[in-house]
Amino acid sequence: MENRATFFAIDASDAGSSARLGRLSLSHATVETPAFMPVGTLGAVKGVPFDLLESWDCRIILANTYHLMLRPGLDGIRRAGGLHRFTGWPRAFLTDSGGFQVMSLATQRDVTEEGVRFRSHLDGAAAMLTPELAMELQAAFGSDVAMCLDVCPALPAPRGEVEDAVALTARWAERCRRAWTGPGRLFGIVQGGTHEDLRRRSAEEIAALDFAGYAIGGVAVGEEKREIERITRSTAARLPAGRPRYLMGVGTPADILGAVRAGIDLFDCVLPTRNGRMGHAYTSAGSVAIKNARFREDGRPLDPSCACPVCRRHSRSYLRHLFVLSDITAPVLISMHNVHFYLSWMRRIRDAIGAGRLPELAPPPEGKVEE
Amino acid sequence: MENRATFFAIDASDAGSSARLGRLSLSHATVETPAFMPVGTLGAVKGVPFDLLESWDCRIILANTYHLMLRPGLDGIRRAGGLHRFTGWPRAFLTDSGGFQVMSLATQRDVTEEGVRFRSHLDGAAAMLTPELAMELQAAFGSDVAMCLDVCPALPAPRGEVEDAVALTARWAERCRRAWTGPGRLFGIVQGGTHEDLRRRSAEEIAALDFAGYAIGGVAVGEEKREIERITRSTAARLPAGRPRYLMGVGTPADILGAVRAGIDLFDCVLPTRNGRMGHAYTSAGSVAIKNARFREDGRPLDPSCACPVCRRHSRSYLRHLFVLSDITAPVLISMHNVHFYLSWMRRIRDAIGAGRLPELAPPPEGKVEE
Repeated sequence: MENRATFFAIDASDAGSSARLGRLSLSHATVETPAFMPVGTLGAVKGVPFDLLESWDCRIILANTYHLMLRPGLDGIRRAGGLHRFTGWPRAFLTDSGGFQVMSLATQRDVTEEGVRFRSHLDGAAAMLTPELAMELQAAFGSDVAMCLDVCPALPAPRGEVEDAVALTARWAERCRRAWTGPGRLFGIVQGGTHEDLRRRSAEEIAALDFAGYAIGGVAVGEEKREIERITRSTAARLPAGRPRYLMGVGTPADILGAVRAGIDLFDCVLPTRNGRMGHAYTSAGSVAIKNARFREDGRPLDPSCACPVCRRHSRSYLRHLFVLSDITAPVLISMHNVHFYLSWMRRIRDAIGAGRLPELAPPPEGKVEE
Repeated sequence: MENRATFFAIDASDAGSSARLGRLSLSHATVETPAFMPVGTLGAVKGVPFDLLESWDCRIILANTYHLMLRPGLDGIRRAGGLHRFTGWPRAFLTDSGGFQVMSLATQRDVTEEGVRFRSHLDGAAAMLTPELAMELQAAFGSDVAMCLDVCPALPAPRGEVEDAVALTARWAERCRRAWTGPGRLFGIVQGGTHEDLRRRSAEEIAALDFAGYAIGGVAVGEEKREIERITRSTAARLPAGRPRYLMGVGTPADILGAVRAGIDLFDCVLPTRNGRMGHAYTSAGSVAIKNARFREDGRPLDPSCACPVCRRHSRSYLRHLFVLSDITAPVLISMHNVHFYLSWMRRIRDAIGAGRLPELAPPPEGKVEE
């Protein structure tokens, strides 16, 4: 991994926290961090056309290896010329390894030293995911950032199970490291549940393998919010300072701000699109559940301070009207707004770090908007 | 209706047919005809953001009075400041009168001299639509073009029923004419089923009322394609040459070309959006049913000759992948392509009329794309 010095550059640090402003130089994009990666499970950010993401200066999205290995499959992606050509997204892709989805979506999972044997949630077909296959898949995808295959137990879990997951994650990380031939960068993943000592052990074991970047996995899988924050803080502090840190699957705008202060650089989360399809909008004044009758004649935009195309044009009452009558336009517009909201929030965080004003930055309220 | 001379200007006519190139000057847009109006039933063109429609130079969309009278209702639209403000669409709206939807969607319809009594398809609530209410609704909407309430029997129907519909449509047209106070233009609607003599009678009765424009209604309601063409041709020829003619609810690109040659200026149809959501794309080489296995590894765009954002970026194989896995992005992207396809097709028709080359213009094949 030559040129690592230029792969991740830290341009500024927050004096009062571990937050930093950085630049991640990937084959298909330079990503300014802290960055949010919209989730494109099947290779599309549900309901949000790539033209819009580009116009909002989104540089990187995430795609799910588990879903893509089932359809269109390794050979399908390979014949299509990789994920960028297959999807038409010309900027950067981070792909997860499939480990998390195998555990959360597939049925009849059987984790062995070799890998995970499972049945597809689509058709029950038997399949096997190994560290080597996870690498082969992500290399064929042409992922800008690939992730090691890890073992992610759902919490709460007995300590012994988490301990085994940490150990197997380390052995798999080593196999991933050896097997990785892709053009992109490979990140290791730290496990360990809510146990400080296991997280420490995992961080040391994974860091010793010298990855281009490090992810904190196995968070937001059933534990308390306060636990997530504690683990994120202590684990981030044990990861190499000069490498990018990625907190997988987290979270709300407030969660993200907290994690940025703990030193996290990369985020992904389904919340903006999944909640968008359910009619939940993120705004600077709290969340808007558009179905609520109080918005029936509310002529204001979802977020009066938002500059997105949805807020520039449409009222809450109009979006509610479309949503309650199941017009497909409603989930699409609300998803667009939400993704724009997340991307703008990250820009505000980056601007605040650059201006030395991160301590003053307050996250949007987590509750519902007040009148 | 002052300034009618400038309301509709005919700039060119085709030598070999009744086709003409025109300009319709409405309060919110000047519409170049022949024009296609994407259908925005609830005030949104399903899945296609207004930003895109504007960028494609779409000047007018259609909204359905029946749906809007149920939700958000007359008072709701009035309090929102009309349809343009409610929806955020700043260009022209044509609204139908609700007559067709009452007959096709509502239950327990009872047509009397006074109007149509029916039950809402949403919640069974009893409601009544009269010519006067249809006018009040469309005036409150601020429609650029409003339509008279007509009686549209589903075909086949006994001649006596069609005859009654023609007579009642004429009496209602007179009431609409008297009741209309809106800022927009009011169009009359000709009925008469597939009977030449009834169509002639209806055209004469409606034309005698001196409307700003005329629609041919009650087509594509169960009759043969050949019948639609015959009726369109003969009815269009009986409508005042200097007024815009609108063929309601028709049709495929080929149907539209045929009707343009018969002298029709305005069209609306749910096909591009409804078929888009079902995974059917219109292309210059025929239709693409994206679910078909033959597109599984087809790296070509939906239509290789199309300049829309979807065809510029995405392959059939990618769209199929998203569609079969029920990703909301697929119906959205295919709807976008289809609406763009229709708008482009109308531009090609207008260009051909302007260049005196309409006879050479061939419609896209109606069947499925060949390999």
